[in-house]
Amino acid sequence: MLFTGVLPGLTTADSDQFESALKRFVDSRELPLYKMMAYHLGWVDQNGEPEPVTIQDRSHGQLVLCVAKAAEVDSASAMPYAVAVEMLYNFLLVHEDVQNANPERNKRPTIWWAWGPAQAINAGDGIHAMARMSIFEQRKANGTTSDPRNISLALESLDRATLDVCEGEYLDISYQERAAVGVDEIVGVARKRGALFGICAKLGGIAAESDESVLEALYQFGIAIGTAQNLHIDLQALWPDEGTERSEVQRGRLQSKKKSLATAHAIENGTPSTRRRLGEIFMKRVLDPTDLDEVTAILAETESRAFAEIRVNDLVDNAIKALEATKFSSERKNSLIESAKLIVGLN
Amino acid sequence: MLFTGVLPGLTTADSDQFESALKRFVDSRELPLYKMMAYHLGWVDQNGEPEPVTIQDRSHGQLVLCVAKAAEVDSASAMPYAVAVEMLYNFLLVHEDVQNANPERNKRPTIWWAWGPAQAINAGDGIHAMARMSIFEQRKANGTTSDPRNISLALESLDRATLDVCEGEYLDISYQERAAVGVDEIVGVARKRGALFGICAKLGGIAAESDESVLEALYQFGIAIGTAQNLHIDLQALWPDEGTERSEVQRGRLQSKKKSLATAHAIENGTPSTRRRLGEIFMKRVLDPTDLDEVTAILAETESRAFAEIRVNDLVDNAIKALEATKFSSERKNSLIESAKLIVGLN
Repeated sequence: MLFTGVLPGLTTADSDQFESALKRFVDSRELPLYKMMAYHLGWVDQNGEPEPVTIQDRSHGQLVLCVAKAAEVDSASAMPYAVAVEMLYNFLLVHEDVQNANPERNKRPTIWWAWGPAQAINAGDGIHAMARMSIFEQRKANGTTSDPRNISLALESLDRATLDVCEGEYLDISYQERAAVGVDEIVGVARKRGALFGICAKLGGIAAESDESVLEALYQFGIAIGTAQNLHIDLQALWPDEGTERSEVQRGRLQSKKKSLATAHAIENGTPSTRRRLGEIFMKRVLDPTDLDEVTAILAETESRAFAEIRVNDLVDNAIKALEATKFSSERKNSLIESAKLIVGLN
Repeated sequence: MLFTGVLPGLTTADSDQFESALKRFVDSRELPLYKMMAYHLGWVDQNGEPEPVTIQDRSHGQLVLCVAKAAEVDSASAMPYAVAVEMLYNFLLVHEDVQNANPERNKRPTIWWAWGPAQAINAGDGIHAMARMSIFEQRKANGTTSDPRNISLALESLDRATLDVCEGEYLDISYQERAAVGVDEIVGVARKRGALFGICAKLGGIAAESDESVLEALYQFGIAIGTAQNLHIDLQALWPDEGTERSEVQRGRLQSKKKSLATAHAIENGTPSTRRRLGEIFMKRVLDPTDLDEVTAILAETESRAFAEIRVNDLVDNAIKALEATKFSSERKNSLIESAKLIVGLN
């Protein structure tokens, strides 16, 4: 489950301010195209009429603000970066919904489901183009007070992270049709797809004009969280949190043969007969519920669940270690550590 | 038909240099994702093996170089902008092929046809993210020699133009299901979709560090060409060039009820019975060949073809007039005027 609350270290006022900035940025434009975006972001219904705000995952933008706070910089300088990265994250979601044919997100029809794939691809492209605009607007507003090199660095880092996500997505789709996908390959995909969190943490540092070694440490902090979150989401699909049923999205992921760290471990370390059985299951076009039960039974035998969970925890430890290179107060560091755990989905 | 040659004012060496720069930019990356892009750009086959270069429309990048030449700046400063805008144009094509379900482009299967919609959406997103990277790389290579404000201006203009195209695409898709679409609405969509040529001409000026009034004139020059090209493509679908048959893409556009300046004119100016008849035809889900014959017959009665062609020519005149604000030599101006006509598809 994605985290939809307010990250520790931020007040409700901080989070409201961020939501308003995001909303103002999208609402300042007139065309119905932007109503579609506002719908996706949870502020209006399909007819463009205001509706009670849908609670959504805003952890990308919030992480930028958390890091900026930890670096003792005022949130106004970090806000345009928070808006930019939240837009990037959402453009990827809009396209992912078309790619995976998801009918619902946040318990409402997705853009592609309500307006068709052509409009959804286009709306995503528009959100992608808009992502950097909040940063350009900041440059104009602040004039010479913000270092243009920092703005360039932020812009370039955003594109680099987006391209990493696309590389990860490419591999992820290719692996879906392959039975033998190794542990390193799975971690590699998760790391690419997690690049956006790396950039979130780095952007908080850029807003504070931190030096290069701190920016690198923040990037390592963020990307470890992003990698861990991606790996953990796949594990949660296999073993939903206690007291919860497997959701439609989780079932869909498994049935379309989305690999996880646990299955990769079993394929690499199982007995020949276990591996053959897993191979047979993954040869099917779509898996049925009995197949899923058999997969989890095999993963119990090979102790692959434990292996995968340890790996996720190791990544969170790496994230914590990366923070040592910063000079944040221990209170601030603790908030970031708590935030990391919530984003990954551990509590 | 899109122009696939070398624009007047450029030598074959210029065009080869541009193609090499574009190819180097994509080839410098290793993953199979980039092979897919190289396939789309016409350099390799579906297995990633080199194949004789497919001739494609490169007029966006070439126009940047033409304007830079006219402004007497060396092509090295304009090259990263030419690469950026050509990447943007191609990301839009890759997505358009999914949106319109085009099986072929440049006589070869499209990415979505060969690899499926999920990979095509992702490849397009990757090309979009890469578009600006050639500009960042230039900044690093040139260090302090290029004014950072110009680079920022270029980056911001690229995003603004992309968002314009998305706005146009949104309207275009919405209009497909509406019978009554007016002349102003059609021109409005064509102008938004033509924004990329506006930015091409402006980027040539930015490379030459032209002052603001010249940049504005160049933008007006380019956007007039882009608008005219969009309008003209729809007219060519209705009335293919003499001696040529309607292509599959042209037939597809008409059958899916893509409106044109000529149909909009007929809807606004026809007799009540003409308008009723057009309305009935556009009520159908898909048009058949008899419907298309009837549409062209109605457009002959209402003299809408002549109206539309005059409008396209007026736009080319506007483009020519916009060049007056520049101090380009008359030889260079003439090359740009010839280029404009070739891009629009008039000869």
